[in-house]
Amino acid sequence: MSLLVTGSIAIDTVETPFGKREQLIGGSAIYFSYAASFFTPVRLVGVVGEDCPSALLKVFEGREVDASGLEVRPGSKTFRWHGSYVKSMNDAVTVAVDLNVLAERTAPIPPAFKDSKYVFLANTHPRLQQQTLAALAHPRLAVADTMNFWIESEHAELLNLLKQIDGLVLNDGEARLLTQKQNLISAAREVLKLGPKFVVIKKGEHGCLMVTGQEVFVLPAFPAEQVIDPTGAGDSFAGGMMGYLATQGTLSSSSLKRALAFGTVVASFTIADFSLDGLKTATRQAIDQRWHEFKQSMSF
Amino acid sequence: MSLLVTGSIAIDTVETPFGKREQLIGGSAIYFSYAASFFTPVRLVGVVGEDCPSALLKVFEGREVDASGLEVRPGSKTFRWHGSYVKSMNDAVTVAVDLNVLAERTAPIPPAFKDSKYVFLANTHPRLQQQTLAALAHPRLAVADTMNFWIESEHAELLNLLKQIDGLVLNDGEARLLTQKQNLISAAREVLKLGPKFVVIKKGEHGCLMVTGQEVFVLPAFPAEQVIDPTGAGDSFAGGMMGYLATQGTLSSSSLKRALAFGTVVASFTIADFSLDGLKTATRQAIDQRWHEFKQSMSF
Repeated sequence: MSLLVTGSIAIDTVETPFGKREQLIGGSAIYFSYAASFFTPVRLVGVVGEDCPSALLKVFEGREVDASGLEVRPGSKTFRWHGSYVKSMNDAVTVAVDLNVLAERTAPIPPAFKDSKYVFLANTHPRLQQQTLAALAHPRLAVADTMNFWIESEHAELLNLLKQIDGLVLNDGEARLLTQKQNLISAAREVLKLGPKFVVIKKGEHGCLMVTGQEVFVLPAFPAEQVIDPTGAGDSFAGGMMGYLATQGTLSSSSLKRALAFGTVVASFTIADFSLDGLKTATRQAIDQRWHEFKQSMSF
Repeated sequence: MSLLVTGSIAIDTVETPFGKREQLIGGSAIYFSYAASFFTPVRLVGVVGEDCPSALLKVFEGREVDASGLEVRPGSKTFRWHGSYVKSMNDAVTVAVDLNVLAERTAPIPPAFKDSKYVFLANTHPRLQQQTLAALAHPRLAVADTMNFWIESEHAELLNLLKQIDGLVLNDGEARLLTQKQNLISAAREVLKLGPKFVVIKKGEHGCLMVTGQEVFVLPAFPAEQVIDPTGAGDSFAGGMMGYLATQGTLSSSSLKRALAFGTVVASFTIADFSLDGLKTATRQAIDQRWHEFKQSMSF
């Protein structure tokens, strides 16, 4: 089924204990699209500036990613992020950020994309997330991500968004900030009161949990020995999760759980190298195999 | 099968976001014994001073804990620990510690305990842990815990101990300190090179992982909504794990995995209230039920 993603497209500089790399391809929509495309065709909406390196435009060659929603805007500059994991591989420190084109208007949604049934609204201004949602005809599953900045500065708009989406994906610190609850299960239950039917809280190297009105589901992270660059892990997780869900006819509890495990496994490929290099080594077959290994590694 | 534990017996002062409590019963051997006694008879070896409150001596009434190895030493004072979880429920800050009787000689192991087949050497000086081990006739499974202090100050003795034990249980920070490896799976593999056949790394609210020569096993923590006082969670985990193992005829991979899940579940009772109050609400039936809930909460 058709899966649409709107989100950032970035040129990253990343520092980890394994080195510093510049001019990396990154951004939430990029990681999400690449990850989801192992499962289902993806429709990408995003904007870059005219400085966008050609490597970025070629990244989806041979993959089922429809990038006709990618706007290359003359006279603008691509979003840039410089982050460091030198202190902690689980928490990026933002060294510098240049919003550039992201501070302007968003890319329009191509008319052909408006019938998308599955939609992931990667982190951006919650008003823009609502606009995207409003532009779609009849989405079947709408899931959003958000971040500290919007929780603090656009709280009312975020609450409006939450009333309109089926699922929210956010990290542990964000869940605590949004709900003022320290316990993550309590925090997730608070989020459910605000609208979504399910909440997924990402804990980086510590796995994730999902809370619905009926149940609590917990997963450790995939036990990865090679962690080179965590950038994009959360977006790859969401991509794997949504990509798998889009292939399912149902949003049953068991589909959601399997989807979270697929998200976990796809993210484990991302972190094994800088930028998209880890994800590029994956195949659907390798993902399926690791999914079974993951299941085995926690079965008792 | 007979399960022996040596470790600390403490009078704790504990501060958490839920309040400050004084004169609490605590210590690794206490939590371990109580937790393990849901599964198997426990033999406790430890020492307190003459100031020991009578409540402490009565804590095992009606339980299968043989406290004939508990020495009440005249003229000495009981070990006291004052910790705070106000900043983080996952990391205790030690406000004050008075070793008192723990800085003197250890309690002797009663002759009747020397045929113990399962032994848990809770955290103490690694030379004393070796002495305990040497006093036992033919232990079938010897598992030890340790901590930063011994890793740093008694490294050589700790390495000697590691050559003599089957399993090591320690937390994530300790594993990193011991091996100088940041990645926990890599750290566990380094520990295996030092002697033990299996290593269990406890990550507090983030669960645990076990590495053997053959496999990696990961578990999230039990998704607990009520976390009042994490004191003793790690010792209760070890108690549940060792208690269950002592009931098994085998140390197979599947026994070890089920044991870790039982340890996880028992610890979830401990953290739900101060001191032993959470653990006191448990029964073997309630533990089994929660074990199945836990299995369900992570099955996909």
